[in-house]
Parts: sequence; structure tokens; C-alpha cells
Amino acid sequence: MPDFSIAVDLGGTNLRIAAVSTDGEMLEKVTLGTNLASGPDHVVSEMCDAILRLSGKYRGGGSFLGVGAGIPGVLDLEAGTVRKSANLPGWSGYPVREEIERRLGAQFFLDNDGNMAALGEQWLGAARDVPNMAMLTLGTGIGGAIMLNGKMFHGMNGMAGEFGHVPIEPEGVPCGCGSHGCAERYASATAVVRMAREAIASGAAPGLVKAATDAEFGAKSVYNLAMEGDEDARRIFRRFGKALGMLLAGMVNGLNLEMYVIGGGVSSAWDAFAPSMFEELRERALVYAVTEPDAVSGEDEAAARVRARSGRKTIVTRALLGSDAGLYGAARMAVVGA
Amino acid sequence: MPDFSIAVDLGGTNLRIAAVSTDGEMLEKVTLGTNLASGPDHVVSEMCDAILRLSGKYRGGGSFLGVGAGIPGVLDLEAGTVRKSANLPGWSGYPVREEIERRLGAQFFLDNDGNMAALGEQWLGAARDVPNMAMLTLGTGIGGAIMLNGKMFHGMNGMAGEFGHVPIEPEGVPCGCGSHGCAERYASATAVVRMAREAIASGAAPGLVKAATDAEFGAKSVYNLAMEGDEDARRIFRRFGKALGMLLAGMVNGLNLEMYVIGGGVSSAWDAFAPSMFEELRERALVYAVTEPDAVSGEDEAAARVRARSGRKTIVTRALLGSDAGLYGAARMAVVGA
Repeated sequence: MPDFSIAVDLGGTNLRIAAVSTDGEMLEKVTLGTNLASGPDHVVSEMCDAILRLSGKYRGGGSFLGVGAGIPGVLDLEAGTVRKSANLPGWSGYPVREEIERRLGAQFFLDNDGNMAALGEQWLGAARDVPNMAMLTLGTGIGGAIMLNGKMFHGMNGMAGEFGHVPIEPEGVPCGCGSHGCAERYASATAVVRMAREAIASGAAPGLVKAATDAEFGAKSVYNLAMEGDEDARRIFRRFGKALGMLLAGMVNGLNLEMYVIGGGVSSAWDAFAPSMFEELRERALVYAVTEPDAVSGEDEAAARVRARSGRKTIVTRALLGSDAGLYGAARMAVVGA
Repeated sequence: MPDFSIAVDLGGTNLRIAAVSTDGEMLEKVTLGTNLASGPDHVVSEMCDAILRLSGKYRGGGSFLGVGAGIPGVLDLEAGTVRKSANLPGWSGYPVREEIERRLGAQFFLDNDGNMAALGEQWLGAARDVPNMAMLTLGTGIGGAIMLNGKMFHGMNGMAGEFGHVPIEPEGVPCGCGSHGCAERYASATAVVRMAREAIASGAAPGLVKAATDAEFGAKSVYNLAMEGDEDARRIFRRFGKALGMLLAGMVNGLNLEMYVIGGGVSSAWDAFAPSMFEELRERALVYAVTEPDAVSGEDEAAARVRARSGRKTIVTRALLGSDAGLYGAARMAVVGA
């Protein structure tokens, strides 16, 4: 059996723990509910039980190399604590690393979940062999990460990559961060639902009105409608793509990286938002216009990587690892360090 | 006499050449007109004559360590050519490094003029001892630079730092780059004059109407009016500061650097635009809000540097070296390399 590490993806809803071999094979993945109501101590106990179970099971042939975890929110990487997390209420200041290391008697690496997705995509996904890249993770909000020379760029206090809060609308929609017009207010699952509710309230979006009667109504429903040709749903994703293109244009002009990867659950709506995203990007990013590849498409990732590696073309493309990107990244961090 | 290098600042109007000692003393500075009409070969000849004159003069005691030049526009750093420069029409594709090295028989370093200003400020100015910083140079447009771990961050093809073309107004003013609503359309000398002309055309800005009769009317005139309390002129600089704050908020949230330095000729209007810039920044940048120093002012640079060095606070401050920043940077590059 190969050497392996344990990856943790701690979300507000699910707690996922996986054993991943050093050559990138997912050996086993366990999904638990995150029992937020019981408090951080309880969640950490459940997490450690699962880590010990998995590491014991695969320790047979290969070596157990360590544990890495992706955690949502703003972390204090030095102290190993959660500074502020909308998805983990009650965790602010909780000494998560200390508690886990105490229970496991082993070193534990933690980082922001968006950073872990980027590390995963760089290890095994869309940005394989691309040392300089940024990633946007489209979910409830927008997570972000920058990797330079193959290493995570954390910034001064681990807060680099907060691209979801780059302002793109001077007089835009209020955001939970205290600002307004932030990119994630226009290009996230939350944004899709908000725009759908607004369209419904306007009284002129019959398809959305019908879809909204479903108890499961969400961003996915709006996407399905858009794919069926509903003009109101399509308009919402055009707005989404325009916002994302504007955000990317600023990143491309400011950073001039080889690759920008779009991941997260909402990136599965790529077909609905990508055309207007690329249109906006081409118009707004002079660096992109100068360095645009001859053709980029979701299906052409291998060719795109070759072009990105040649260091001449700016690639904007989809993530490849889906919801497991963060687990792969956390497993990798356990091996190569933070 | 100390060891020294030669710095070149090649602008569309002025060609400046200086001998600078390795301990940062400006030994001599020569300002020539840039004779653009005679073509690049002629300008390079005049430049090389001046370089040889200065290097001969100071070669007495100390060693002549090399030549560095800041050049406006998009450069191909590998090839040593000008890719595209609004300020140097007719220079696209001109092999500037090759021609100069041939004439001088010595190695010649070149980089973007905005990058040189940042290197100068990091060597001797506002960002002394601050390894991770970005600089915005406010002039005709906005130049930009990022320094990480004390080194220039060039990006994939030397185009990193094009912050002037970060979009901040979705439906904004058209820009020469082909986009619209770029930051430099709202926070540059050109932007100030445009806003003044618009205010005049609106028929309700008597102070500006009067000032505009002066043949020398420009951004400086609008600043002077603002300082005299003219409400229309003050409004223009509030708009300027708001735009700059929005740009900075995106940079701070995305990059989480220790320091952001505002330089260039138009930064002398600091008193007029800084209040609204800081207001916007505080409201929009969650990273800034979390890491804002207790107090920052133009007079408090030494204290600000100490805080930036401690790696906990985000500092936004004025450049200190004025129009010589680029010369100091170019002199430094000649010694430490590109």
C-alpha cells in the first residue's frame, strides 16, 4: 500500500475526511454532518475519531504522513485559530489546531478551504504544472487563492485571495462584509437566488415563479431553467458572467498570472455564465487581450495547460476536481507543508 | 568617491539621466528633452552620450556598476524591447536594450517606469524595509507595481501591476485600452481635467470656468481651486479619492500586502483626495478594516513603516521620493539586477 495522508474538509454542513495516497489516489472518503450546535469541541472530537480510524486502517503498508484541513473563513494561520467564519458560528478564537494536535498527538496543518481547492487543482487538476495561478471558488460566496511559484501566497496575515470582496459595483448590493457591490453579490449561489427573487418580485418572470414553488428551489433550479431557454433565467447568468468577467479582468490586469481557475459548486453552471464572462474579460483586460490563447474551451484543458506552461498565454478555465478539490489540496498540504 | 550606477528615466517629454551612489546619494542629474520626432535611434544616441559623460566623470574614485532605465509602457523584458507605449510613439518593437548595450559596451537593465518608482520607494522611500508592497503612480494614467519578498513581481510577461486598468465603473468612461470604467479614468491628471471640463460644460462651476481661461490650466489648477475651497473642484477630488479607494480596496482584499504606496505627480494633491480615499477603503476592504493601523498620516511614515514591518497592519501612505523615485529605482536595479 502507498504512503498516505488524511484530508479534512470542514464545512458548515458537512465534515468530510479522506485518506489520500501520495500519488493522488482517494483511498477512502467519509462524510459526516457538522454538528455545529454541539460546539467546536464536539466537532473536533468526531473529526479526530474519524482521522484515527482512517489512519489506522491504511497504516498497514504505507506510512501515515500527516493531517491537513481546509476550513472556511478567515483564519489566524500562526495561532492556528479561526478568526471569523460565517459558516462556523461560535468558532471565533477557538484553538482548533491546538485541540486537534492534542487529541491526535500529531502535527496538523490548516488553511482556508479556498486555498485548499487551489492547491488540489494545482496538484491534480486544471492547474497541474502551472506554478502561478489564482482560483475562484464559486459557492455561497466566492473563495479565492493565489499560488506563486507553486506555493500558496498567504499575504501578510493569511488573508490574501479575498476576491469575493473586490468591489465591482460602486453603488451595488450590500454585502455581509460591510461593503456593497462586492463581486460575490453578483457571482455566487446566493447572488443567483437573490436575482431570481428580484425577477419574481418584478412580476414578469413566469418560469422562475413556477420553479420557485419547488421546496428545493435554488441556484441549480435557475440554472436548469436557463438551460431550457428561459430568458429570465438566462439573463441572471449573463449578469453573473459579466460580474465574474469584470472581477477577472482586474485580476488579470493586476497580476498577469498564467492561469485563473474557476471552481466551486456553482462553476457547474459554466455553460450559462462563461460566454458573457469571456466577453467581458476580452473587452476589459488589456493583458488578457494581448496574451489571449488562440482558443480556450472547457474540453481543451490539456492544450490550455501546455500554453500556460509556455508562459505566454493567459488561461481562464474550469476546475477539474469538483467538490473533492479541497480534500486533495488538504491531503497535499499534509505532505508538503503549509 | 563612492561606487555608483547610472539611472535613466525615459519619458515622453523628458529624458533624465543621473549618477547615483550605492548608498543612495544623487551625485548628479541631467535633464534633456526627449526628441521623439527624431526617432528612437537619435534618442538612444543622446542618452548614451549623457551616460558616458556622467560615468566618465564619477569613475574617478568609485566603480561604475552599470545602467538601469525606467521606460513607460508595456515592455518585453526578455527581448529588451518596447511592446506598446502611449508615451513613446514609434518605439514598438524597437530593440532598445540591444542598441544601448551595443553603444555602451556594457550591460543595461530596463523595466517599466512604474516598477522603477516602486523599487526606489522600497530602497530609500516610504516602503523602506517593507518587503511586500504595491505602488500606484498617479500621473497621466495610473502606473502600478507589486513587490514581493523585496523583489519586483513581473507576472508571466512583465505586465503585472496594470492597476490603472482595473475596472471600477461597469458603465464608465471609455479608456484608451479599449475598455471603459478603468480606474485611471477617475484617478489621474487626465481624469481631473476631464471632470473639470464636464463641470464647466454643465454651466454651474464658475470657479473652474475662470481657472480654465489660463493657458496653463490643468490638474494642478483644479487642485489649487479645491484647496481654496471651491466646491466644484473639491467634488472632483472627492470623486478621485473614491475611485482610488475602490481600486485600493480590491487590491487590499486580494493581495493582503503590508503597504500600498501612492506616488506620481498627482499624489501631491493628497490633501484633496485622501480623505474620501480612506473613507472608501475603510468601508470596502474587510482586510483593511481588520488590519487597519491605529492612525496613519502622511507625516507619520516612520511609525507606519514600523507597523508594516511588524506584519500586522495594512498601511496606505504617500510616496516620499517625488519625481526622483524612478531614478533611484533604476539606479538600484543597475546594482541588484532586474
